[in-house]
Amino acid sequence: MIVVMKPDASKDNVQHVIDLVRDYGLKEHVIVGTDRTVVACIGDKRNVDHGAIENAPNVERIVPILAPYKMASLEVKQEKSQIAIGPENVKIGGNKVAVIAGPCAVENRDQLLRTAELVKEAGCIGLRAGAFKPRTSPYAFQGMGEEGLKILAEARDNTGLAVVTEVVSVETIDMVAEYADVLQIGARNMQHYPLLDAVGKAGKPILLKRGLCARLDEFLLAAEYIINGGNKDVILCERGIRTYEEYVRNTFCVAAIPELNDKTHLPVVADPSHGTGHAHLIQATSLAAVAAGADALLLECHLDPEHAMSDGAQSITPDALKELMTKAKKVAQAIDRDI
Amino acid sequence: MIVVMKPDASKDNVQHVIDLVRDYGLKEHVIVGTDRTVVACIGDKRNVDHGAIENAPNVERIVPILAPYKMASLEVKQEKSQIAIGPENVKIGGNKVAVIAGPCAVENRDQLLRTAELVKEAGCIGLRAGAFKPRTSPYAFQGMGEEGLKILAEARDNTGLAVVTEVVSVETIDMVAEYADVLQIGARNMQHYPLLDAVGKAGKPILLKRGLCARLDEFLLAAEYIINGGNKDVILCERGIRTYEEYVRNTFCVAAIPELNDKTHLPVVADPSHGTGHAHLIQATSLAAVAAGADALLLECHLDPEHAMSDGAQSITPDALKELMTKAKKVAQAIDRDI
Amino acid sequence: MIVVMKPDASKDNVQHVIDLVRDYGLKEHVIVGTDRTVVACIGDKRNVDHGAIENAPNVERIVPILAPYKMASLEVKQEKSQIAIGPENVKIGGNKVAVIAGPCAVENRDQLLRTAELVKEAGCIGLRAGAFKPRTSPYAFQGMGEEGLKILAEARDNTGLAVVTEVVSVETIDMVAEYADVLQIGARNMQHYPLLDAVGKAGKPILLKRGLCARLDEFLLAAEYIINGGNKDVILCERGIRTYEEYVRNTFCVAAIPELNDKTHLPVVADPSHGTGHAHLIQATSLAAVAAGADALLLECHLDPEHAMSDGAQSITPDALKELMTKAKKVAQAIDRDI
Amino acid sequence: MIVVMKPDASKDNVQHVIDLVRDYGLKEHVIVGTDRTVVACIGDKRNVDHGAIENAPNVERIVPILAPYKMASLEVKQEKSQIAIGPENVKIGGNKVAVIAGPCAVENRDQLLRTAELVKEAGCIGLRAGAFKPRTSPYAFQGMGEEGLKILAEARDNTGLAVVTEVVSVETIDMVAEYADVLQIGARNMQHYPLLDAVGKAGKPILLKRGLCARLDEFLLAAEYIINGGNKDVILCERGIRTYEEYVRNTFCVAAIPELNDKTHLPVVADPSHGTGHAHLIQATSLAAVAAGADALLLECHLDPEHAMSDGAQSITPDALKELMTKAKKVAQAIDRDI
Repeated sequence: MIVVMKPDASKDNVQHVIDLVRDYGLKEHVIVGTDRTVVACIGDKRNVDHGAIENAPNVERIVPILAPYKMASLEVKQEKSQIAIGPENVKIGGNKVAVIAGPCAVENRDQLLRTAELVKEAGCIGLRAGAFKPRTSPYAFQGMGEEGLKILAEARDNTGLAVVTEVVSVETIDMVAEYADVLQIGARNMQHYPLLDAVGKAGKPILLKRGLCARLDEFLLAAEYIINGGNKDVILCERGIRTYEEYVRNTFCVAAIPELNDKTHLPVVADPSHGTGHAHLIQATSLAAVAAGADALLLECHLDPEHAMSDGAQSITPDALKELMTKAKKVAQAIDRDI
Repeated sequence: MIVVMKPDASKDNVQHVIDLVRDYGLKEHVIVGTDRTVVACIGDKRNVDHGAIENAPNVERIVPILAPYKMASLEVKQEKSQIAIGPENVKIGGNKVAVIAGPCAVENRDQLLRTAELVKEAGCIGLRAGAFKPRTSPYAFQGMGEEGLKILAEARDNTGLAVVTEVVSVETIDMVAEYADVLQIGARNMQHYPLLDAVGKAGKPILLKRGLCARLDEFLLAAEYIINGGNKDVILCERGIRTYEEYVRNTFCVAAIPELNDKTHLPVVADPSHGTGHAHLIQATSLAAVAAGADALLLECHLDPEHAMSDGAQSITPDALKELMTKAKKVAQAIDRDI
Repeated sequence: MIVVMKPDASKDNVQHVIDLVRDYGLKEHVIVGTDRTVVACIGDKRNVDHGAIENAPNVERIVPILAPYKMASLEVKQEKSQIAIGPENVKIGGNKVAVIAGPCAVENRDQLLRTAELVKEAGCIGLRAGAFKPRTSPYAFQGMGEEGLKILAEARDNTGLAVVTEVVSVETIDMVAEYADVLQIGARNMQHYPLLDAVGKAGKPILLKRGLCARLDEFLLAAEYIINGGNKDVILCERGIRTYEEYVRNTFCVAAIPELNDKTHLPVVADPSHGTGHAHLIQATSLAAVAAGADALLLECHLDPEHAMSDGAQSITPDALKELMTKAKKVAQAIDRDI
Repeated sequence: MIVVMKPDASKDNVQHVIDLVRDYGLKEHVIVGTDRTVVACIGDKRNVDHGAIENAPNVERIVPILAPYKMASLEVKQEKSQIAIGPENVKIGGNKVAVIAGPCAVENRDQLLRTAELVKEAGCIGLRAGAFKPRTSPYAFQGMGEEGLKILAEARDNTGLAVVTEVVSVETIDMVAEYADVLQIGARNMQHYPLLDAVGKAGKPILLKRGLCARLDEFLLAAEYIINGGNKDVILCERGIRTYEEYVRNTFCVAAIPELNDKTHLPVVADPSHGTGHAHLIQATSLAAVAAGADALLLECHLDPEHAMSDGAQSITPDALKELMTKAKKVAQAIDRDI
């Protein structure tokens, strides 16, 4: 941490900061520049709120130096994590780009089993669909619950696909973990810490979505909660952030993929469906994500998007999925990976 | 809902949309303009995901017309709600602007009881402090838990102040409700629906913070969840949103106050502490919030901000609180209210 | 400037940075922390692009310490600037809050002269209206040009109001300066440096609007261009920034007012019309701006907003202006200022 | 345009809107829904500011239907434009992805001529470098001016590369056009309309950068200014937008590429250098842009980024450029294009 003093800080002001720094168990290092003095602090502890020092007289600002996360960082583990999922132990984070597709929600048994077959046929290795849906409106369809989970498990048994589904509350973790292969934490729950703590003990890999306006540090700290809770199998998912852009539901941050690859050993998945919100943008964005180094794609695919009960606008048809897979495979090969 | 067709939409495309609209149980109204055709739909149902129609061939976009919330809106209840809180039944939403202050977290008994006295002396009607703290880092101080709640209750007994404290999980609602007068839902939990549903049955008023990047519609829908769950005593709290601005922790949206007053009967509270993140900006922003029509202020106040265990940078001292109260009272009187 | 090394930086990497720092004419100061090394640089020069050092091997990032502007800062001039405008030399930046109002554009002589009278009657000290309009669409009304300027001058002669009007190009500065009392640089031109340079020689005070998504540092650097060009009479105008918020045209940053007052001696004006974009939000936002410490308000007022040729949605009527002035005066008095 | 009335709008309110709509020369179409009435207006004229109608009593909001641009749209010209640039008439917008690279600024003759050779060797078809630099700080290096332009022309003569360079003011357009093959309008000037108008007559293709926080509609309207001014050869450049993200200088919007391809016939270029701001993110983002359908890449490349006079942090070395070209070529081929 660096404490930057204001230009008119007195010696006493600087001494007061030094005293504070020592109170916090740190060692100080004072640097007197031409225009202002800064106090560098050695021994930063990640559990102390240093911001408080900002209140000392004539302190201008505090500049943190250390990344606040640890176990998620490349400093601690330098080789990329590979996380095996589903009945066939497909690895996320290896050379092959994995594709997980399926409808936003389990709507009924026929729909899901049929979709699962087509998803499998297209070359995907995972099936996604929600049984518990966190919906912005209390009047919207909230999911089929345990019945939906059973249908998902049946689809896995039929196809060998890994089942990825969202868990929205601490109470339902055990139930979801009984049926699913990967537990998804949705964007709106990325900072619901009781849930993060609890899935640390779920015994299943976690797919953690980036919050609606989360910084990458906060994203990695959310992963750190889960790892700290006991579960090192965390897959990160870039799904776009909220900006002023109006032609997309979210602004998909393609540069987050190489940046995460530069900061963490955890695998990185891209979700172009939520990342754009519109079917006509999904193929191009998916190819971009693969080219940028994503380890997997998470896609919404619906037999009849015009009648989807949720997220219809951002769902592609099974035919569009098949075409996307063919092209994504070529792009993956162009960068010496495969699908 | 209005369905806007692309310029080159054929008659068949329009007919296909009409069929879809009828499938959804709506009545259509086709308007052929000079450049494009739009299909206005009558009978919008708030529980249907109309976005799916965007997938129909040659549809350009869907424009929703109805606000998605109902019970929180002025359409349903036209006079402003007044919500009585605490042992003295102080009304939030009446002519008097209420001020609620206190430290970010209960750190120990002495600190809190002493702060409560000074908060009371300054003319505040509520005491805020967290016993359960949702922290971005798993390594940071997470609050004193039930012990903290007991200290809060003791402070209320001593001073008559209403106790406002955060509830972070469904499992702890009953415990928090036993001690607190108002349950706070934090910004990061604004869209944690299981919690919103559950506090609908808590039997205590709810202070709901706007999410980090929530739209006002989403904010009001979160309130709708609580009202729909059975609790009509919801107080909305503007606490700033995340933007690119770097001199503040969040960008405080002062215009959200009159806009919410124009859309909902629920009282509106301002939180300039989180809304700015820096002590030196809190007084001016508080006065602005009062001038703009806020029904209450929520302020972080710490005996010794330089040593606060959390949110030190945005906490003001009791002396600064006293000065703020004097000025805020004058501004309130200038707009024919009082404090 | 502080150079933060990556955790695995070698001694050679650090030495390479030291060499670079010396190349740039700076002195280094190496601090070896528990997890990483930082190199503090003394003698930062504001004209050097230090970012380049980021490219040195195993450099993580560069943290600038000095504010990049100088003459606009309180470090150089500690007492608030007061800038006299118009035929009556009204001071912007003194104890009295000044209000400048008028239509978006000069539409015709009668409209403007009549509006000027009503603006004067309401207690305003300045008249705003555009003769040259920068419009997003090439098909929109672009202003009356010099004819509009003549009408503005006539209105000034009739009323004594100071005329504030926008200058959009270097070529028209002399013409606009001949008629106007204050030259406005619009938000979209805040970083059009040839214009900033040129108005540095215009001999008239400048009202500089914050860019659509400008940081405060960039805003102050734009002012610095003008001051550096020879004109110290710069008035800063907060007019909202672009965010994801959809109920406003821009998000008005009320905390920018105290922050600017904390950083610069230049007066700060608020523009709630552009800051919100909707007539029903203007009064509350104006009162907030006054309470937060704005030195002046800039308001769009139109005789018949429903028929305004531009910015109709954000224009208030002369009656609404009168009501706003009465309330704003009371708020100003509540904080020991006046209008 | 659709006028949405408030729920409690009376018949008179609706009639008043109808009268206004007719005043504006439009035809109305009233639709009475279950909760509210909307007035659809036929005959939208792109040059009228309909926002003013929002001021009519009990109007809730105005929903525009038509895109505000015309000549830039696919409605007017359905096949993709190909724009030939430079001495070898390389086409931007055809099947081959074009790469344009070079330093941020011309720093001296040797640097530029040497860079040009390496850029050519790497397989690029254009050379970029600024002779006039718009810099945020008045103290920063502002470019070599005409001398720099002459060096650029010499580099073109040596290599056959097309020269792309920025024009920052109306007065220098002719001078820049004399030496350059493509005139670049920088992000900060995207809405400087006098410049847009003037380059409409420059007789050279224009590379128009998206503004720092421009919406796509505004971006296309800026192109419309140029086309309307007489120059149909406009190349659009996505270069990232300002968001709260802190690990990048700008957030590169990869989905803007397919969205622009869906809306306009103009070619689309990606600028991953400004789009990310950091050398280590440029390769991945470039590959993503190609995969997403960009017609060209614009890259900053410097012989010695550690000593670059501007934009050092986002410049790659000639070796890195060569590696990037090899990979980008493979990705281009994977989507049936080439480089």
